[in-house]
Amino acid sequence: MLAEIITIGDEILIGQIVDTNSAWMATQLNHIGVRVKQISSVSDDSEHILQALAEAAGRAKIVFITGGLGPTKDDITKKTLATYFNVGLVENQEALENVERIFAKYNRPLLEVNRLQAQVPANCDIILNKNGTAPGMWFNHNGIIYISMPGVPFEMKYMMEEQVIPKIKATLKLPVIIHKTILTVGEGESFLAEHIADIENDLPPYIKLAYLPKLGQVRLRLSGFGEDEALLLPQVEQFAARIIERIGNVFVVAEDIELEKAIMNKMEAADLTVSVAESCTGGYLSHLFTQHPGSSKVFLGGGVVYANTLKEHILGVKPQTIKSFGAVSEQCVKEMVQGAIKNFKSDFAIAITGIAGPDGGTPDKPVGTVWIAVAGSEKMLIKKYTFGNKRQQNIERSAVMALSMLNTLLTDIAN
Amino acid sequence: MLAEIITIGDEILIGQIVDTNSAWMATQLNHIGVRVKQISSVSDDSEHILQALAEAAGRAKIVFITGGLGPTKDDITKKTLATYFNVGLVENQEALENVERIFAKYNRPLLEVNRLQAQVPANCDIILNKNGTAPGMWFNHNGIIYISMPGVPFEMKYMMEEQVIPKIKATLKLPVIIHKTILTVGEGESFLAEHIADIENDLPPYIKLAYLPKLGQVRLRLSGFGEDEALLLPQVEQFAARIIERIGNVFVVAEDIELEKAIMNKMEAADLTVSVAESCTGGYLSHLFTQHPGSSKVFLGGGVVYANTLKEHILGVKPQTIKSFGAVSEQCVKEMVQGAIKNFKSDFAIAITGIAGPDGGTPDKPVGTVWIAVAGSEKMLIKKYTFGNKRQQNIERSAVMALSMLNTLLTDIAN
Repeated sequence: MLAEIITIGDEILIGQIVDTNSAWMATQLNHIGVRVKQISSVSDDSEHILQALAEAAGRAKIVFITGGLGPTKDDITKKTLATYFNVGLVENQEALENVERIFAKYNRPLLEVNRLQAQVPANCDIILNKNGTAPGMWFNHNGIIYISMPGVPFEMKYMMEEQVIPKIKATLKLPVIIHKTILTVGEGESFLAEHIADIENDLPPYIKLAYLPKLGQVRLRLSGFGEDEALLLPQVEQFAARIIERIGNVFVVAEDIELEKAIMNKMEAADLTVSVAESCTGGYLSHLFTQHPGSSKVFLGGGVVYANTLKEHILGVKPQTIKSFGAVSEQCVKEMVQGAIKNFKSDFAIAITGIAGPDGGTPDKPVGTVWIAVAGSEKMLIKKYTFGNKRQQNIERSAVMALSMLNTLLTDIAN
Repeated sequence: MLAEIITIGDEILIGQIVDTNSAWMATQLNHIGVRVKQISSVSDDSEHILQALAEAAGRAKIVFITGGLGPTKDDITKKTLATYFNVGLVENQEALENVERIFAKYNRPLLEVNRLQAQVPANCDIILNKNGTAPGMWFNHNGIIYISMPGVPFEMKYMMEEQVIPKIKATLKLPVIIHKTILTVGEGESFLAEHIADIENDLPPYIKLAYLPKLGQVRLRLSGFGEDEALLLPQVEQFAARIIERIGNVFVVAEDIELEKAIMNKMEAADLTVSVAESCTGGYLSHLFTQHPGSSKVFLGGGVVYANTLKEHILGVKPQTIKSFGAVSEQCVKEMVQGAIKNFKSDFAIAITGIAGPDGGTPDKPVGTVWIAVAGSEKMLIKKYTFGNKRQQNIERSAVMALSMLNTLLTDIAN
């Protein structure tokens, strides 16, 4: 079953916002066996939207449309859909009551522009929007389903989870798609490809292998397409097992989860805790951990010790150490990690200090110089990295390498 | 001048990665007066790519293609482009030397799959890739320019900045597009629209106004399209000034920058510093600040005090306070912010404690309950928020509201 996603709005096309909705929707659709054929972002322009709708309907059975449903003048999706289906706009009672309910809840006067949000093309079924005033719309036209939702992520997500996905499952007979992802860290895409070339050659045409590299990590994704899950799943699993056996110690986890989540899962199972002392990563590593529900079972917290005075106050780094060797030094990162273990009373700690850039480099410590220390009660790893001169990349690479070092330490202990 | 962006790769269509490249490219293109008409993400499928190329070439003058240039089997962009242009693949000496240089640098053996990366369609000009082994390609075919680049963001970005943008500017006569963005915080889209309806009605057809809402903030974006910057710019500026005057105190800054960056700019100009005490935001607010170059001039750091023991150790929160009132309480957030000011010696401090969810709520403190305190030497604001039950949203909203409170405090002091 093929679907397409059309996002409407100039804000994506001028780069003011990143389209995160489509990736989220695609993930949800894959889980129920709907494959996204194309994602198209088009402008707030009626003719362009009409063309995109026709193109998508020529390739897919379900067309998702997000955006352009706000109360303001640049939001033209509804009118355009009415044109596309050759119907008029009518006020929908259920949608109106929803708008009234929301305005009553926040004690705000109902403006005429808001009332207009209850108008929808005459041929649609309403998808109730509990989190906003713009209703979603479900159309069934010439054998194609069209689903229009707001572009605001949490409004769209709620509608998808609570209403759209269940309705799709109830309406359509869906094929099976199985994805199996293997997370690796520490080796490049080409090395891995060469290493498993014979396994890849053995794959049947209905199982595909993709390499997804991302800052020090490569995800290997097997995708099986078929009708019968009971037949397909063991085949995909078998190829995954062969790959995992072959790649050895670069393997992290056979799940499509984030590196830090995989590590927290291992630590939670072993009843271990971690704390951090972040200088150049500035809270990014903490955020990686704490974005995940339940992270407090493993992650105690730590210091974002951007200023040297905070390295001293929070971690007990000696002023003399910073004076003699600098804040970006083996000596400093060692005192940082030791201070974290001691003061925060965690089983493991990570300390990172470096020059993220773009300024602040010196000839012997150029931008991208990062010291990372990871320590448990019995073992400590300290490494110096020399990354590039891009700030955000240096921050992200530092965090990934720190996690990779923690993974190594945990693996050593487990073996 | 119209462009289109085609991203190639199943990883976007199954939602495994978010396409951040296109937004970045669109921003760069807008700066030089190239408007992106459509962004299309298509699968690793030759026929689908051919169709997308033809559709894009029917609408735009420049077609950007990213992705599918890796050394592995699922990367089929080059072969497909050769088919599209009806030419063969040839080994390019410059591209081969680049591959050899990179492998020599990292002391790795050059594999056959890597050598193949130097093969390109016979009709292209090479765009050198200093950060990777896959060359970029520039085609000029029947009056349309096609530019193919790797999907790895930092490889693509470097190529765009250093080579593609300069070559586009040198090759084409470009029109003028002017964007002016007004950042507001604290009022909804509908309220703003009603409030400035008459100004919006006065806009000429070549100046458009868009509303871009995002978690407590609304960006108002004026876009002017024309030929003569000297004529267009003052008109756009004049409408921006009318809007800013009208909206009053919800105005933050007349730049398209992030809220936290706008605040740091104000603080840097006044030589003020800030520190944080983050519980439920878990490092996210620190990361918001520190992602920006130069943040160390304003942001000193702080504590990610996830565990209660860290609230006590790092901030000096009294154990009795947590015992009597809980960690999510007015009393606790007050001691947190006071502890931050005292221990971190900053001019201002932000403290946040709450229940991000999805677990951990109680009947009187449901998930989404967040206490925020912002303090300077003379003034303190403390507010309780009740957000929803989505973890990531609660984290982001907490940070935005904390920044909004800091902005209020700074504005009060300035007036």
